[in-house]
Parts: sequence; C-alpha cells; structure tokens
Amino acid sequence: MQTQNQNCNIGFVGLGVMGKNLALNLADHGYRVAGFDLDAAKIQDLLDTEAKERPAGVDAPRMVGCSSMSELLNNLVKPRVIVVLVPAGAPVDAVCHNLIEAGLEADDIVVDCGNSQWTDTIRREQEYQGKFKFFGTAVSGGEVGARFGPSLMPGGDADSWKYLKPMWESVAAKVDANGKPIETRTPGQPVTEGEPCTAYLGPNGAGHYVKMVHNGIEYADMQLICEAYHLIRSLLGYEPAEIGKLFEKWNQGVLNSYLVEITADILQQQDPKTGAPLVDMILDSAGQKGTGRWTSISATQMGVPAGIISESVYARALSTLTAEREKASQVLVAQVQGSDLSNEDIENAIENALYCAKICAYAQGFQIMRAAQEEYNWELNFSDIARIWRGGCIIRASFLQKIADAFTENHDLENLLLSDYFANAMDNRQDGLRKAVVMAAQAGVPVPAFYSALAYFDGYRSEILPANLLQAQRDYFGAHTYERVDAEPGEKFHTQWQVPGRPEIQTK
Amino acid sequence: MQTQNQNCNIGFVGLGVMGKNLALNLADHGYRVAGFDLDAAKIQDLLDTEAKERPAGVDAPRMVGCSSMSELLNNLVKPRVIVVLVPAGAPVDAVCHNLIEAGLEADDIVVDCGNSQWTDTIRREQEYQGKFKFFGTAVSGGEVGARFGPSLMPGGDADSWKYLKPMWESVAAKVDANGKPIETRTPGQPVTEGEPCTAYLGPNGAGHYVKMVHNGIEYADMQLICEAYHLIRSLLGYEPAEIGKLFEKWNQGVLNSYLVEITADILQQQDPKTGAPLVDMILDSAGQKGTGRWTSISATQMGVPAGIISESVYARALSTLTAEREKASQVLVAQVQGSDLSNEDIENAIENALYCAKICAYAQGFQIMRAAQEEYNWELNFSDIARIWRGGCIIRASFLQKIADAFTENHDLENLLLSDYFANAMDNRQDGLRKAVVMAAQAGVPVPAFYSALAYFDGYRSEILPANLLQAQRDYFGAHTYERVDAEPGEKFHTQWQVPGRPEIQTK
Repeated sequence: MQTQNQNCNIGFVGLGVMGKNLALNLADHGYRVAGFDLDAAKIQDLLDTEAKERPAGVDAPRMVGCSSMSELLNNLVKPRVIVVLVPAGAPVDAVCHNLIEAGLEADDIVVDCGNSQWTDTIRREQEYQGKFKFFGTAVSGGEVGARFGPSLMPGGDADSWKYLKPMWESVAAKVDANGKPIETRTPGQPVTEGEPCTAYLGPNGAGHYVKMVHNGIEYADMQLICEAYHLIRSLLGYEPAEIGKLFEKWNQGVLNSYLVEITADILQQQDPKTGAPLVDMILDSAGQKGTGRWTSISATQMGVPAGIISESVYARALSTLTAEREKASQVLVAQVQGSDLSNEDIENAIENALYCAKICAYAQGFQIMRAAQEEYNWELNFSDIARIWRGGCIIRASFLQKIADAFTENHDLENLLLSDYFANAMDNRQDGLRKAVVMAAQAGVPVPAFYSALAYFDGYRSEILPANLLQAQRDYFGAHTYERVDAEPGEKFHTQWQVPGRPEIQTK
Repeated sequence: MQTQNQNCNIGFVGLGVMGKNLALNLADHGYRVAGFDLDAAKIQDLLDTEAKERPAGVDAPRMVGCSSMSELLNNLVKPRVIVVLVPAGAPVDAVCHNLIEAGLEADDIVVDCGNSQWTDTIRREQEYQGKFKFFGTAVSGGEVGARFGPSLMPGGDADSWKYLKPMWESVAAKVDANGKPIETRTPGQPVTEGEPCTAYLGPNGAGHYVKMVHNGIEYADMQLICEAYHLIRSLLGYEPAEIGKLFEKWNQGVLNSYLVEITADILQQQDPKTGAPLVDMILDSAGQKGTGRWTSISATQMGVPAGIISESVYARALSTLTAEREKASQVLVAQVQGSDLSNEDIENAIENALYCAKICAYAQGFQIMRAAQEEYNWELNFSDIARIWRGGCIIRASFLQKIADAFTENHDLENLLLSDYFANAMDNRQDGLRKAVVMAAQAGVPVPAFYSALAYFDGYRSEILPANLLQAQRDYFGAHTYERVDAEPGEKFHTQWQVPGRPEIQTK
C-alpha cells in the first residue's frame, strides 16, 4: 500500500460504516479518494470488495489506500480536504493532532463528519485556527444515506466551503422539482440530477447544531406516530396490519413522509417465528442515543418552549421502566370510556391530529434554531434548512417543502404557526387534534406529545396567559416584582402583601 | 469594632438579606453570632437596629461585628462554624480562600447557605478536603423564612453535622404533631417546640440538590394552580375574587397549602389604582431564576420523566413572548366549545384535577431524587425530605405529611403513585383530571401541566406502550436492534427490513 502523489481530491480518516459508505459515494461521483484507518485490514478489505466490484461500463473506483496519515497527506491535492469519521469526542482531537504532526498545513481543511456536539465544533474551530481549517459537516441518513445520498449539514469557515461545495452537492441526496427525493440503491449509478440536499449553514458548530435539532424533531415525529397508532388500536381495536394500511393511505396525503411509510410497512409485518404481528413481539422499551436529550436541554437552557420534543424524550425514558409499569398496571386502575364517534370520524380526527401536532413540533424545532442563532451569532437560513431535509434524512417529508416555502416567503417569520399556510392548516384541522386529545383522556391512552402540541398551540395563540397570577405569587413570597399592563415596559412594581391595605410601590 | 475571644458559636460571612435574617434567627435562639461583611456599614447598621432593638424581657442580642475575617475567626469557639451567604458561584470560592488565609483550620466548618448548584458543592467538598470541612445547607423560605424558621436542607461531611445539628434544629421552621407549621413573626420570640424542618440529607451536594428539586416542584405547583384558575375563569366566567373564594374553600381540603392560601388572597385583591382585580393589572410574563430549568435539565440528563416540571418551565418561557402571542391571537383562531357540566361539577372536577396533577408532579420530583442518589452515591431518606418540607418552605402543604408517611411505610417505594394512599387518591379522583383535560381541550385553554400529568399517570400505569413500534422504526432506519417479548432480556434482534421475507437475525 505504498502510494505517493496520486492527486486525490479528498482523504478519509476512519473507514467504519459511515466513512466507508461516504467514501464510496464520492468515488461513484468521480472523485479520487484516499483512505486511512487505524485498522489496516479495513482498508484492504474495502479495496478488495466494494471499492473494486463495479457494474460493467463504470470506471474503476478511484480509491487509494494509505498506511499512515503522512501517506494520506502526500496523496492529496492542496489545499487538502480530509474527512474525519471517527467516534465523537476525544478521538476527533486525537486525529487532528496526528494530522498536524503528519504535516497538515494552515490552508488544509479537516471536515468532522461525525456526530459531534456543536459546542465541541465551536471549540475546535477556535483551537485549530492557524494550524488548519476545522470544518463541521453533520451527515443524516445512516449507512444507506451515506452510500447513496445523505442530507449534509455543513458548518465552518466560509472560505473553505468553496472547496467542499462541489463534492458535497454531488454526493448529497437529490430532490426533484416538486421536492420529492430521487432515490437510487445501485452502486456506481449515482443520481446526478435534481437539487442537492446540502447548503452552507454558517460558521463553526452551525451544521452540527442543525443536525441535533433534526434529531430532536425526529424524536417528536416518531413519538407522535406511535401515539396515533396506540390511540387507534385502543379505540378501534384494529389489528396492526389494518393500522398499517391506514398509515399507507395517510402516506398519500399531507402526512407523506419516510417515517409514515416505514410505519405502514412495519405494522404489516408478521413475526416469522410466531405468526403474530411483528410489532407485538418487540419489547416496548425504547432506546436513545442522546441527541433528543441534547435538543431538549439546549432549548431549556435558552428558554425556548420545546414541550413536544421533551415529552418525546421522556416517553422513551418511561418506556424503559417495564417492570415498574407492569406493577403499576395492576395497582393503578383507570376509569375509562370509549368514543361515540364513528370509526371513520375517529380515523380522520387522528390523521388531522397527527398533522397538527407535527406542525407544532416543527414550529418548536425551528424556534430552537432561531434562539441558537442569537446565542451563537449565526445567521441561519431556515428555508435552506427545510430544503436540505427534504431528502436523505430520516424526517424527509413532503411537508418540508411547505416549510421551505414559508421561510422563503418571509425569512424573518417569527414562528411557523404564523405563516398563512400553516395557520390555515391549523384552522382546518385543529378540531381533529382536540378530538384526539379528548378521546385519549377519556380512554386512558397516554399521548404526551399530542397533549403538549395542543397546549403549545393554545398557549401560543393566547393573548392572556395566567402568568399574571404566577407573577403575583412570585411577588408575594419572594418580592420578585411584576410589570403592570398599564405601565411602561420595564417598570417594576411590588405589592406589600403583608401590610394592611396592600400598598403597591414602584421599585428601581 | 475590635473584638477578640467573644466565644461566639457561629460566624457569618455576608450579611445581606438572607445572611442578616438567619443570623438574627440564631441570635433569637440564644446563639452568639459573629458577623462579617465586605460592606462594614451593613454590620454597623445591623448592630444599631435589628440586632439591638428587642422586646422587653428578651436578652440583649448576642451579635458581634467583625471588621476582618481573621477577627471573625478569633471570635469563634473551635471547631469554628462559619456560614457563608454570598452570591452563588465565584464569590463562594473567594470567601473560602480568604478564610484559609485568615487562619482557618482543618477541623473548622464552612457552611455554604447560598443557592449554589449541587455540582459546585460536590466539587468544593473535594477541593477543600484537608484545609477545612466544606458543608452545604440550602435555605428555603426567603427572607421571612430565614428570620423566623426556614426549611434547612443540609448536606456535607457527616462528622461536621453534630456541630450544626443543634443550631439548625433550633432555627428551622417547626411543625406540630399533625405536621402543621407553627408560625411566628415576632422577633425575640422564637418557636421552640415542635418538630424541626431540617435533617441531615447526605454528603456533599445532597442538600443543594434536594433544594433544587424543591424548586422544580414549586414551578409545577404554581403552574398547576394557574391552569386551574385559567380553566375556571374561561369555563365559568367567574371574577377573580370569586375564584379566590373557591381557592379559600379548597385550602380547607386536600389541597391545603401555602401556595393555595396565597393564591386565594391574591385573587381577592383589588388594584388600588384602578379598582380592577389586581391580577388583571399584572403583566402575564413570568420570570424565572434558573432552578426550575436546572431540575428539568438534570432529570433529562439522567433519563427521568419530568414532563410536568419541564412543561411548567416552558409555560413561563412562552408567557414572555407577549408581543408574539398578541399577534398569534389574531392569526390563529380556535374552534372551541364550553362544557355542559354544571358549575358545581366543573369546580369539583378541577379541584380533583389539581390534586391528582400535584400528586403526579411530586411523584416525578421524588423520582428525580431517586435517580440522583444513584448518580451521586447518596442515600437519601425520602421520608425526611417530605418531613422537612412541611414547614418553612414555599411548597409547604398538609399533603407532605402523607408523602412522609408513604416513605416511612416503605423506604424503597419505587414511585409515590404505587403507595396505597396515593394510588387510592388517584383512583377516587382521576375522573376530575380526565374531565379537566377534556374541557380544556374543547375550550382551547392551554393546560400543559395538567396534560402532562395525565399522560404521566396513563403512561406509568400502561403495561404496554407503543415503544415497540418505535423500536421497530429505529431498527428499520438505523439497525438499532430490539428485544423480543419472548426472548431473554438483553438478547438483541434485528430484522433485515430490505431483504425479501424480512428475515430476523439475532445479533451479538
């Protein structure tokens, strides 16, 4: 594996599942890729198999294996572009330091394509200034996405973007003029037409932050689908396969999305072992890897209402208490009742509930990003963000085209719910959300995300909230003061609650 | 102010509102207090006024002013006990370092009575080992509590506790044999009988952590009260004073608590300027100082469902968007309807809803502390925690006696909802919570905390949750694997969703 001056366009450090597939994707698009992995067998294996076997008529893959980082550097055109795809955390810094020792130069670009926390990306961009350009690119779409077209969320040094742009636009997922993904699963036959699902998002951690919020929204999306399924099954007693068919129907309408599509598929599967519906054989204890939590925590720290996302995180946490829940199911008895609506009305109500709640979840997600851009001095283009989520990633959905349109029409839109399109949708369909909530409460079906969505909608559209009483309480026990509706903003008042006549004084 | 060898029992660094009042409280109980403040005028002022004026027959206050930290140390019996009441953060460490320089010894005890984050207390206890004993004590009850009887939540070195115990038990709030607070507001006439609202909670940050959760629960308590008020006003059109009377009535029953009491009082107040109900003149934009957020974030990090507390934090955040909400109230129209229940039925339903939701909020709070004791190697006594919250603090309530009883009966109670008393209460009253949720959804009143409480109750008592579908989705798009209900725990399976026949393989 001794190679020199192969004039490769891009180098890879880390050829695990994601690195290997993204490298193959680049090779399919005609880029020469140099690859290094601590595990030399991984490189050789790749060169011997997937990087070798090509359909007839396709050029030999342009992939070069390197046995050291300096060899990797020697094989790249300058400024060098090196993708790092190693586990998030310390390994990323270790690779950066090794690359510096191996001769990395100030104009070279290191792209962290792993699942790093945005705060690490911000720190690294600072820390490596002068040594090389540190750039972040979050990759969504898992193994298949990386191989055939992921959603790519780049953030970093604006000057470096020009070197990455052609490559990222080539390998990213593509959507057609209607915003529908153009898919391929054939190695060596990449999609070359359509609009790419990538756009420069901003400096330092912007890309990794946007990806984190994508995942937070994904948590909400999945939880809402589960609640819709649970509610229908509880109220109507349908078998999973029947509900799968219903999701299939919903997938033709406003709910059209990858997650609804796979839900329809899952619910129609039989367990090969028992013949029972497969879903019933799966333990109801949900895992999580952290990005939902991070989104919830970031929102909470910035003071952005993110109830739907947080409730989705908590729903997974609650699900893991299987033994406790089993005990509780015997101790805590519910007084419940069904609905007197027709089956068709119930189905329609829940479809509309799912759509309304989804709108609210996305509204929260975009509010989190709005707050983050203030916090971190980014200028996010929300239309671009919605556009690059239309293909390649888990939350891809027709719906995202409408979000892109809303933000294109008004870049400064304060909240998705205030756009004509979504305000209108909520107007037409909120009745379904209200009915779903009523039926769930009466039937004893836990729908934390549906509930939270309705509370958010009703809270956001409330000119007056009972926070006036809350401020009075805070002033009562802690002299925290309040503002008055008939005084200037910022003027603070305190009622002397313990003094006869309760005199009010202006403070400061 | 040159003083020496006054044999004082306890020293204070920081004589602001909290420091001054806690010092006066100790003096009332017969302890000799030495005080230091960077602002010498504060000391003199205190000696000239509150520390001087005493009702007839009361001993002269035993307070000594010191002009330096070394003077403070010289006036204390050994081992010295020094309370630090300065703003949380760097000032606490600055005082610690200054005390070391002034001659603090290894057996001396520094007690941080400020609003420190528990993680700081854990760090400090480590950092100052060998130099002195760092001890934490969180104080709840604000200015009045500090002066006449706070709830004190101590955590730190167990050996040091014996020096603090008699003083803390003297000055803490007291409750009678029925768990009711015995109150005083008369300087020099402290309450000396009853059970004190303090108990040793555990090492290092335990006290500050428990206080943080107290505040998280307080957020939920306040939000639930606001939602009950909002719902009654929206559904029944009562004037605030009328609702105040209703809260007064509720305060005689299971809801008896300080927060319900002050709510009744607040709602019956007229604005002196306009004659309108005072609450209507207060701007509905709620402040927050951070402890609710911390609680929510800590729960999220540990994976503990804390929806009610988090929704309460978000409700405050949403309330601050007054301009946006005004706009949204015109753009987003609700299709709403009232209830056909009688006024009395509605009142009863909401009273029961408030009680049920409160039970769920406390259940979550105690679950957070259960998780924290694992996380930080504490052995919390939950019965003690409930007992010391019965008086002195903001969430004091009759109800806490029942929680104390439940944990006394079973220290290892997995969840408050599983105790006979509270399971029974939920059984008897859940119908009210369901009705309140139904009415709120139909009337368009945002009740995020009520909703979240019902979702928690119904989720917790669900033997089967739709997390099985969620696990299938995760396995579908990310090969995250799942467990099967008919296999051993820990055995992981993956369905090859893209392969014809969808074969299932066991992994690992």
